[in-house]
Amino acid sequence: MTTDEKPAVSRPVADALLDVLRAWDVRHIFTCPGSTEAAVLDALVVRDDLDLVLTTHEGVTVSIADGLSRATRGPSVAYLHANVGLTNGLSNLYAAQLAYSPVVVLNGLKASSIQAHGGFTTGRRMRDLVHQYVKSDWQSLTADAIGEDVNRAFRTAVTEPAGPVWVGLSQDLTEQETTATVPPVAGFRFDSRTAPSPAGLAEAARLLAEARRPVLVAGSELARVGAIDALVRLSEKLGVPVLHEDRRGLERPGFPTDHPHFHGQYTPQHPLVAEADLLVFLGARLFNEFETPRTPQLPPGVRVVHGHTDPQHVAAIHGVDVGLVGDQRLLVEALLDAVPPPTGPRPVPPYAPDPQPAPARAAAGGRLRAAEVVDVVTDALRGAALVGDATTAGGVLQQRAEQRGGDDYFVSTSGSLGWGMGAALGVKLGLPHRRVAAVLGDGVFQFGMPALWTAAQRRIPVTYVVLNNERYAAVGAALRRFGGQAVRRDRWPGTDIAGPNIADISSGFGVPGQRVDSLRDLRERLDAARAVEHPTLIEVMTATDEF
Amino acid sequence: MTTDEKPAVSRPVADALLDVLRAWDVRHIFTCPGSTEAAVLDALVVRDDLDLVLTTHEGVTVSIADGLSRATRGPSVAYLHANVGLTNGLSNLYAAQLAYSPVVVLNGLKASSIQAHGGFTTGRRMRDLVHQYVKSDWQSLTADAIGEDVNRAFRTAVTEPAGPVWVGLSQDLTEQETTATVPPVAGFRFDSRTAPSPAGLAEAARLLAEARRPVLVAGSELARVGAIDALVRLSEKLGVPVLHEDRRGLERPGFPTDHPHFHGQYTPQHPLVAEADLLVFLGARLFNEFETPRTPQLPPGVRVVHGHTDPQHVAAIHGVDVGLVGDQRLLVEALLDAVPPPTGPRPVPPYAPDPQPAPARAAAGGRLRAAEVVDVVTDALRGAALVGDATTAGGVLQQRAEQRGGDDYFVSTSGSLGWGMGAALGVKLGLPHRRVAAVLGDGVFQFGMPALWTAAQRRIPVTYVVLNNERYAAVGAALRRFGGQAVRRDRWPGTDIAGPNIADISSGFGVPGQRVDSLRDLRERLDAARAVEHPTLIEVMTATDEF
Repeated sequence: MTTDEKPAVSRPVADALLDVLRAWDVRHIFTCPGSTEAAVLDALVVRDDLDLVLTTHEGVTVSIADGLSRATRGPSVAYLHANVGLTNGLSNLYAAQLAYSPVVVLNGLKASSIQAHGGFTTGRRMRDLVHQYVKSDWQSLTADAIGEDVNRAFRTAVTEPAGPVWVGLSQDLTEQETTATVPPVAGFRFDSRTAPSPAGLAEAARLLAEARRPVLVAGSELARVGAIDALVRLSEKLGVPVLHEDRRGLERPGFPTDHPHFHGQYTPQHPLVAEADLLVFLGARLFNEFETPRTPQLPPGVRVVHGHTDPQHVAAIHGVDVGLVGDQRLLVEALLDAVPPPTGPRPVPPYAPDPQPAPARAAAGGRLRAAEVVDVVTDALRGAALVGDATTAGGVLQQRAEQRGGDDYFVSTSGSLGWGMGAALGVKLGLPHRRVAAVLGDGVFQFGMPALWTAAQRRIPVTYVVLNNERYAAVGAALRRFGGQAVRRDRWPGTDIAGPNIADISSGFGVPGQRVDSLRDLRERLDAARAVEHPTLIEVMTATDEF
Repeated sequence: MTTDEKPAVSRPVADALLDVLRAWDVRHIFTCPGSTEAAVLDALVVRDDLDLVLTTHEGVTVSIADGLSRATRGPSVAYLHANVGLTNGLSNLYAAQLAYSPVVVLNGLKASSIQAHGGFTTGRRMRDLVHQYVKSDWQSLTADAIGEDVNRAFRTAVTEPAGPVWVGLSQDLTEQETTATVPPVAGFRFDSRTAPSPAGLAEAARLLAEARRPVLVAGSELARVGAIDALVRLSEKLGVPVLHEDRRGLERPGFPTDHPHFHGQYTPQHPLVAEADLLVFLGARLFNEFETPRTPQLPPGVRVVHGHTDPQHVAAIHGVDVGLVGDQRLLVEALLDAVPPPTGPRPVPPYAPDPQPAPARAAAGGRLRAAEVVDVVTDALRGAALVGDATTAGGVLQQRAEQRGGDDYFVSTSGSLGWGMGAALGVKLGLPHRRVAAVLGDGVFQFGMPALWTAAQRRIPVTYVVLNNERYAAVGAALRRFGGQAVRRDRWPGTDIAGPNIADISSGFGVPGQRVDSLRDLRERLDAARAVEHPTLIEVMTATDEF
C-alpha cells in the first residue's frame, strides 16, 4: 500500500505513518523502543515491507541510521524513546548532521496529558535539546497531522543541504485512528539541488584558466553527491593536482587516492599548497579547527575559490575570491564545460609523499606500533569499505587507507566516540555486496559496545578491529602539548584506561573476538574474517606510550 | 591552600578552580576527559587533596557523581568534555535533577576562537542542551571569573531545592594564569532551608488533630533532608499510619519499612487511603505519572495537605487544602510541636499487606520467576544499601526490599536506563562502611556497561545483580496493554534482546561475573560476594514471558 491510495475508512495512525516511510523507500526502522512506541511496533506485526532493526542503546540507533544514509545517500529512520532516548542519541546525531545525513528522528513522547503534567520521561523543552542538530524540529499536534508531518520531515531532510530532522510523536496521538490522507509522496520527491550562480562559475573558470600553479582540494561533499568522476575529468582536462581536504574536515574521500593526480591531504605546509597561486576547494571545509591555528591555514596571497553545498561553510572563517554555493556535482560539471584546456602541456608532477619513516617495528618483547598495525590492516582490508573511529590512530589510518571511491572510507568529524561501531552496521546494510570493516580505538570501543548486540543478533558481517593501546592517548598528547607538571613529572592523569579484555567482551555479545599481539596473527585473523558470514572482532594490543 | 589565602602572585586558573572545589569539601572529581581538560588534569598532578576518578563514558561520570551526592547529601563534581560529552551525560543528569542532587557539571569547551568558528566539538547553543536539567547554566567569560563562577555554581547547586548546575569552561581560559581571588568560601556556605509559613503549618496541624482517619504519606524528600526520625515521632505521637509515596515518585524511602506504623506504598486503592479523611503528603510527588490515569489518584472528597521543598510540586496537578512549601525536616518538626496528642487511644492497625501470591516457583526445567529471585536477593542483601535499576522487576523489588533508613534503597524516577550502575559506585564512595549492591535488568545493563570499568579499576566493592529475562519486558507489557495485533498473533516486536552472556562481559571488564539459574546458586554467590573487596556481578537467568 502506498499513500497514493486513499483509504475509505479510518485506520491506525501508526499504519499511515509507516506508509509514508515506505513511500520514501525506507526499508529499515532502527529503534530502541519503550512503551510509548507500542502502537508503531504493533502496526509492524502485520507488515513485511519494513524491517524493524532493534538496537540496545540510542547511540547505536542513530549511528546505524547515519551509516545507512551515508552509504545509500537516502533518508533513514531512527525511532527514539522519550527524552532519555533522545539525549542518549544526540552525540551521534551531531555526527549525522556534519555528514549531511538525512536521518529522520521520530521521537515517541508520552501522552499529551503526561507531558503537560511533567510526568515520567517528559521534557518541557524537548525541541531545545535537538534544535541545533536538526534542520527542523516539530511536535505533531493532532493525530490526523502525523502522516503529513512525517512526510514534511522527509522532504526537509533530503532538501539540500540535507540533514537530520526531528518529529515528536505523542503516544496518545499515535494510538489513534485517522481518516486523513497524505498527499501522494511522489509530488514531494523532487530534485532540490541548486547550481552556483553563472557569474561566479565564469569567474572561477577564468581564474582556473589563468592560474599558473592551481591546486584542486576535494572535499567530502564530492563523494556524497557523486561528483568524484567529474572532478577526475576536470583534473585531467586541466592537468591540475588534487588534494584531499584537511584531515579534520574529511568525512569521506573526494578523489581517488590511486589516481596519478592525487597528492595527499591538504595542509598549508604541503609543497604544492605553499607554491600555489590558486586553491580551488570543492565541497570541503575551511576549516574544521581542532585548536586555534598557530600558523596561517591559507598561504599568504593565494587566491581562493570555494564551493560548498552548505552556504554556512563558504567564507565562514576565511574570505574567498570566488564563493560558489550549490551542488558540487553541478558545480564541477559546469567548470568542466567552462574551462578551456591548457594552452600548453601542464604535466602534474608525480606524487612523492614526504618520505615517511618506516613504521617503527616493535622491539623484541615490545608492543606493536599503531602505524605498523594500520599498515597490515589497510593492506589486508584492501577493497573493503572502511569505517574509521580511532582518535589517535585516525591520522595514520587516513593516510594509509586505500580510497579509490567515495564509499571506501567513512569517518566522522564530530568527535563523537563510538559512532563508528554502529555506523559500520548501517554502511553494511547499505552496501550489502561489499566487505565492511571498522577500525576503532579502545577508548572508542567503550562508547559503542551496544552495537555488538545488533551486529550479533542480525549477523551483520562487519569486521571490527580495535587498536588497544590501553590509553586515552589524545589526552596524553594534550598534556604533552600543555607542557606542565605532567611532562615534568612524567605523570599522566586521565589517560590510563587499561584493563578490559575487549575480545572477551565482544565474545560475550556473541561477536567472536580474538586478541592478537603480533602482525602475523593480525594478518591471519583479518584474512580469516573475510570468509565468515557473521561479525567478528580483532583486538590488537599496541604500544601504550605513543603520545 | 584554601581560597581564604590570597596569593601574592599569579597562579594557574586550574589551580584556583580546584581550590574552590576543596573549599566546598569536594574530594572526588569524576571525569571522562578530552584534550580541552588538559590544564585541570595537569594541575591535579601535584595535588593529593583531590582524587581524580576516571570514567570511560559520561553517563557514568554523571551517575557516579549523583550517587555520591545522594549518599553524602553534599555537592559533587562531574567534569565533562565538550558538546559530545555533555550530551552523553544528559539522561543521567535528568536523574540527578529529579533527586535534587547538587551535581556541579563543569564542561570543558574548546578555545573561544574555535567556538566562534563552529570548530571541532563545539556547539552554538550549548546552554540550550542543558538548560532544562539544571538550576543555572553559565559559560565563564574571562579567566579571572572562573573561580568565582564555580563558587557561585556550588552555592546555587546546594541552595534548596538543590540540584545540578552547569558551568562552561573554555580551554583558553582554563589554561591561563590569574591573580584574581575568590571571596572566602565560608561566607557562601549558609543554611538555605526555608520553613513553611506559620499560618499554613497551623492549618495543617489543625486538620491533623481533627481528622478521624488521617494517613501520612512519606516522600523521598524526607530521606534526603534527614526528616525520617521526626516523621517516626510524629506518627507515634498521633497514632497515624504511614505509607511510602507512590512507586513512580519514590527515589528513596521516607519511612522505615520495619516500623509498626508502616503500611506499604501509596495507591488510591490502598484500604487506608480509600477510607482516609485526610492525606498528608510530605516530600512526595502527586504524582509522577507514567501514563494518563484511568482512575482518580486521590479518593473523592479527601482533604489533602501537601508539603514539598520544591514549590513546583505543590498543587502541580491536584489541588490541595493546605500547601506547605519548604524544608521537610523543618516542616515535620514544626508539626510535631504543633499537634496535640490524640485525646483518646488511636491504635494503628497492624500492617496486613494484601496477601501476595507466593512467588511462583519455576517449573522443573523452567526458568526462575523475577519475584522469587528478588526474594532471595533482598533476603541475602539485608543490611546493604540497594540501588535499584530494573524496569520491570523494580516494582517487586521496591515492595520486598528492607528499607529501615533513608539510605537503604536508592532508585531513579527518571527512566534513564543504566543510571544505577554508576550511581551504585557513587553511593559506595559516599557510604564506605556499608555493603552496596545494585539490582539491574538486562536491558539496563547494556546502557551502563562502562561503569564496570571504573568499578574494576578502582576496586569499588559493589555487588551487581542482573536479572536477565532476555527481554524488554516493559515494551512487551505495553504491547499487551495496547491489545492489538501483537496480542492477537502472539508476536512481540522490539522485545527480544537475548544473546549476551552478561557474566562473561563483566569478567571481560575485570569484574568477575557468574551466571546462575538456580536460587541456591544465587544465594551462594550473594553470600560469597559479601566477603570480597572488589566488585562482582551475578547474572540470574529469569523467565522470558513475564509481561
